[in-house]
Amino acid sequence: MVPRVVYGRGAIDQLGEIIAPKRKEHAPMIFFIDHALKQRPWLKKLPIEGNDRIIFVDTTNEPKTKEIDAWRNEIVQLYGTASGIIGIGGGSVMDIAKAVALMITNPGSSVDYQGWDLVHIPGVYHAGIPSISGTGAEVARTAVLTGPERKLGINSDFTPFDQIIMDPNLLEGVPVDQRFYTAMDCFIHCVEALQGSFLNAFSKSYGEKAQELCEKVFLEKESWDDESDEELMMASFHGGMSIAYSQVGVSHATSYGLAFVLGTHHGIGNCIAFNHLEEFYPEGVAKFKKMLTKWNIKIPKVCVNLSEAQYAAMIKVSLSMEKLWENALGSDWRNIMTPERLRALYERM
Amino acid sequence: MVPRVVYGRGAIDQLGEIIAPKRKEHAPMIFFIDHALKQRPWLKKLPIEGNDRIIFVDTTNEPKTKEIDAWRNEIVQLYGTASGIIGIGGGSVMDIAKAVALMITNPGSSVDYQGWDLVHIPGVYHAGIPSISGTGAEVARTAVLTGPERKLGINSDFTPFDQIIMDPNLLEGVPVDQRFYTAMDCFIHCVEALQGSFLNAFSKSYGEKAQELCEKVFLEKESWDDESDEELMMASFHGGMSIAYSQVGVSHATSYGLAFVLGTHHGIGNCIAFNHLEEFYPEGVAKFKKMLTKWNIKIPKVCVNLSEAQYAAMIKVSLSMEKLWENALGSDWRNIMTPERLRALYERM
Repeated sequence: MVPRVVYGRGAIDQLGEIIAPKRKEHAPMIFFIDHALKQRPWLKKLPIEGNDRIIFVDTTNEPKTKEIDAWRNEIVQLYGTASGIIGIGGGSVMDIAKAVALMITNPGSSVDYQGWDLVHIPGVYHAGIPSISGTGAEVARTAVLTGPERKLGINSDFTPFDQIIMDPNLLEGVPVDQRFYTAMDCFIHCVEALQGSFLNAFSKSYGEKAQELCEKVFLEKESWDDESDEELMMASFHGGMSIAYSQVGVSHATSYGLAFVLGTHHGIGNCIAFNHLEEFYPEGVAKFKKMLTKWNIKIPKVCVNLSEAQYAAMIKVSLSMEKLWENALGSDWRNIMTPERLRALYERM
Repeated sequence: MVPRVVYGRGAIDQLGEIIAPKRKEHAPMIFFIDHALKQRPWLKKLPIEGNDRIIFVDTTNEPKTKEIDAWRNEIVQLYGTASGIIGIGGGSVMDIAKAVALMITNPGSSVDYQGWDLVHIPGVYHAGIPSISGTGAEVARTAVLTGPERKLGINSDFTPFDQIIMDPNLLEGVPVDQRFYTAMDCFIHCVEALQGSFLNAFSKSYGEKAQELCEKVFLEKESWDDESDEELMMASFHGGMSIAYSQVGVSHATSYGLAFVLGTHHGIGNCIAFNHLEEFYPEGVAKFKKMLTKWNIKIPKVCVNLSEAQYAAMIKVSLSMEKLWENALGSDWRNIMTPERLRALYERM
């Protein structure tokens, strides 16, 4: 778990004080910030000192292992090391900050660490400041990266942030559809976890609360207000805590295939997948469709005119997510989710 | 926040593996264990090695600063230091483990550190393993101690455990009334926090979930089952997380007076106090009374034949808890809760 959490409107103003004791001489703080945030007024107040550096990240595509390696190489070449890595943005930027912090101290390529517990050296200090709610990346024990062969997280005890700052003020200005897609990442992983066979009382209590907050914000309330931002920020946090100790299911397993082959982003990818999963999650999908209507969100179709090779690659990536399928369908999952059935599912997405 | 959490039935079997990397040559692991657990079968499986030591703690009285200092002196004298402190028990043992771990590395008396952020040197490694649910001490940022002049916690960034192990199997054998009193500590602090003026979305979401789980276990379900233990363990955890970022109220403020003057334990003390607080917490107290009836719990009267000096001391201790009163009654609390009104409240308890 993330050992230090600051929550509240205006909390980002404490960043300078928080990172001051972590500064080491000549070693900069590196700020990875989503390029979409370039015009935000609070950017000017960031505690930039000495050779600190801001790197604006184009998150059009989700983070790749080769990008992580390149940033690491550049930082090590220029400064030897860094005092710390601060990530400000959505799930992609959170994952970049976590991965770069680990790679500054760990030799080789980030590809070598995709998987479970392959990191054995603590990274440099890293702090996360989410500017959109839903992924749970701010609390997750993983940093999801797309490598040459697969999209898979660096999942280790050293991956979680040392500090997160949750400031609902930072959520202002997120486009409505983006806010919806990202929030649905949380809603969908709650549905998957709560219906999964790996569930325990820890994840259940967190997942129930996260799902309840999502439903409050997107189904029960008539319009968006300041409280909605606060509630959704907590939904993301609780959802991430839930997933830390359980597993996702069919929607995440299939959306990983979409992401790998088509580059579909995680949030919208899950919406595209989940929209066709009523046979697996009847109640959750029914609520999801109500939310779509209420917030007037149109889910695009992305599996259009795909080649056989593309379908084959999607199916291969998806079926390699064994834990997700087992959580969703039980130990007999290979007999239930055949490549043919998965192909038919993809054709509808 | 506690950075490492293991949850699940049988999780205590992982303790040896978890503490192995924390062991330093010649420095023992010191296990503080509630004496009430002496006959538990899992005691024999604890990973005791070399000069490790088990200290059984008589929790008839809540922990005192002079006891903490004495244990610290003994450990430092005998071994120089300790590899770590493991606490297994209820809130008292959790607080002892946290306080001794801090005092091994910090000079002076534990009295010097009662308050907020007075600890500046990290303690030795400390892990907590709760054997009863409700106090939230397993996740709390404080170690509550009774000193010569006041009952007050060592509240600091270094106080939280480095690791907790939540194993519902350990809850077996807790007497029904003790289980109830301790659980009500959680229920009551949720009611106080959720109705308090210091509430924020972080504490609200945690507190709501904790209170919901308490009500499920003590009001909705017809009988006790394995799931009840699991749910109550999570209620305690979420309740502790909620309080980490908010504040308690009238019940805790008054029960601290009972504890200081009469030695009334925290759980039952809160029950004694809360039972007479319908004017402040009408809905919460109504639910509490239903639980009392359903579980056939009789709340004792403790303020019997007290001297004027005793009442004066209780009132002084209670009214010194300024943050609690402000949270409950607002900034004008001194005009609302006069010593006379508080005296009348105590006379009913």
